[in-house]
Amino acid sequence: MLTFFISHVTLNIMFGEFNLIEKYFVGRQPSRKDVMLAAGDDCALVKVPEGMSLAISTDTLVAGTHFLKHANPAWVAHKALAANISDLAAMGATPAWVSLALTLPELDESWLAPFCDSFFKLADYFNIQLIGGDTTKGPLSLTLTVQGFVAHDKALRRDGAQVGDWIYVTGDLGDSRAGLDVILNTDLRDKPFAEDLEIAHYLATPRVLVGQALLGLASSAIDISDGLVADLKHILKRSDVGAHLELSDLPISSQLIQFLGGVDKAQQYALVSGEEYELCFTVPKQHKESIDSALAHCGCKVSCIGQIRPNGHFELSNKGKVVDWPVQGFDHFQQD
Amino acid sequence: MLTFFISHVTLNIMFGEFNLIEKYFVGRQPSRKDVMLAAGDDCALVKVPEGMSLAISTDTLVAGTHFLKHANPAWVAHKALAANISDLAAMGATPAWVSLALTLPELDESWLAPFCDSFFKLADYFNIQLIGGDTTKGPLSLTLTVQGFVAHDKALRRDGAQVGDWIYVTGDLGDSRAGLDVILNTDLRDKPFAEDLEIAHYLATPRVLVGQALLGLASSAIDISDGLVADLKHILKRSDVGAHLELSDLPISSQLIQFLGGVDKAQQYALVSGEEYELCFTVPKQHKESIDSALAHCGCKVSCIGQIRPNGHFELSNKGKVVDWPVQGFDHFQQD
Repeated sequence: MLTFFISHVTLNIMFGEFNLIEKYFVGRQPSRKDVMLAAGDDCALVKVPEGMSLAISTDTLVAGTHFLKHANPAWVAHKALAANISDLAAMGATPAWVSLALTLPELDESWLAPFCDSFFKLADYFNIQLIGGDTTKGPLSLTLTVQGFVAHDKALRRDGAQVGDWIYVTGDLGDSRAGLDVILNTDLRDKPFAEDLEIAHYLATPRVLVGQALLGLASSAIDISDGLVADLKHILKRSDVGAHLELSDLPISSQLIQFLGGVDKAQQYALVSGEEYELCFTVPKQHKESIDSALAHCGCKVSCIGQIRPNGHFELSNKGKVVDWPVQGFDHFQQD
Repeated sequence: MLTFFISHVTLNIMFGEFNLIEKYFVGRQPSRKDVMLAAGDDCALVKVPEGMSLAISTDTLVAGTHFLKHANPAWVAHKALAANISDLAAMGATPAWVSLALTLPELDESWLAPFCDSFFKLADYFNIQLIGGDTTKGPLSLTLTVQGFVAHDKALRRDGAQVGDWIYVTGDLGDSRAGLDVILNTDLRDKPFAEDLEIAHYLATPRVLVGQALLGLASSAIDISDGLVADLKHILKRSDVGAHLELSDLPISSQLIQFLGGVDKAQQYALVSGEEYELCFTVPKQHKESIDSALAHCGCKVSCIGQIRPNGHFELSNKGKVVDWPVQGFDHFQQD
């Protein structure tokens, strides 16, 4: 009864009267100037710069659904925070603050220490301050809410794509799915580059610089969390348009081709691989020439993979020839 | 494998390609003028009024820890959102937006429908718009992040109490704990007012108006989530002060006294009952006369229950006589 009743207090006792929470979470970062109050009160208090809108995104990762219970906690922390930051990147926003709600089945310092080290390493890289959250007892899961700034009315949205706009993606596609294959099937560990692909699955780099550089250039953007086709579909639906994709232009790593043993399979992976956290964006014709120079400082490959078409059209081609692959997400799109 | 891999897509399919999410969550509220984008993109986009700070709080409720798995979903929704709003109330902030991360073991419309009805009813009452969140598959839990505004440097904090300040609480204390007794022990359902106390446990009213009215008057404030003594202890620790509480001044409902069969027991409940979501606040002597008129429009009882003392002192009295009850939270305080 007591455990149920005073769950906060119980957990605090479990955590040694806040000492361990303080040890792992408090005072780990310098305070941003726009944070007046972080941990230790009922709310965090922060200031948003004048003229800026606030972009907010929430992601939950549940053990057994989004990661294996025994996954490396450092990688879980990176994956969770990177996925959350990636949503800001897709709006062109500059990250600022994050709240972390962490539910743990028990206090395990050998889990918490590497989790926190990895979490703060990535947060520090993007100058994101942890401003609050909650720590509760229960089945392992995390919910993050990240916030950032973007100038009023400048944010990259999903609803701005126009017929004729060019479709781009950052980075390489498909590696995350292959990495997940390795995670779930240990027999695949002997295949070429299996370990690199597993790491690629967990350790994505959110494309924050690219998103910011695209403000004023791109007509729409999304981050690839469900898969290229599935996420592009969100842009198409919100913008009332269709699309054509050229398979031979999909950016694919040589590691993926060797791991899968062929280009066709790799292209299929590139179309459906989720949790890539690359950006997919559309660029009006008049800005196409500007893209390479605008993104030159971002240290990130970008590839033009297709073009926006009128609503109702969705076409895949390979070196110009139409292909009719049963791509996941494609059928859903047709039914919409 | 597929379930693990494309968890978002899988859940979307489980939820009928967003239709059910849309049915229950989208378009349920009029859009606030400061919300430019809510559901349907990578982030929500909102504007904070000039001159205002943003107050942010995150709470997680896990089935089996914070509520029973088979608890009334309407009551769970109210409890979760009320607890979260209560943190804004304790800062004197005006609620604005909420994000909801909901993890469900399965799609159960008979659970989701009353949950959402109750959630939006309370949100609408406080003019709070749901701006985003996440829906995932896993053990039942909810994480809410609520945000509100408070004028720069005006927020009620925990660190402002001074020796001599008077200590107040809103409402009645102890009912929530008694209600939990009823929830966990069905034998108690025959006791007087058992049902009223169970409802009191779930259906707290966040003291938003009181918090706002205390801006410029109170020197510190906190909401009672862990229990009066445990939460007052947070104020004392942050403010480097001690306290004296007079038991006979604790606000206790006649229902609680009848349920417990005596005043002493009711006073003990009032000291430790968690999840009350009443405010505990301190008022400098020069503002004591103003409190009643300042709070007259709030429709909420307030009681003066003690006074701030120098650091290191913590005393309970009953009609002026010192009592030495082993109050939970008190010993922790002594050890700090």
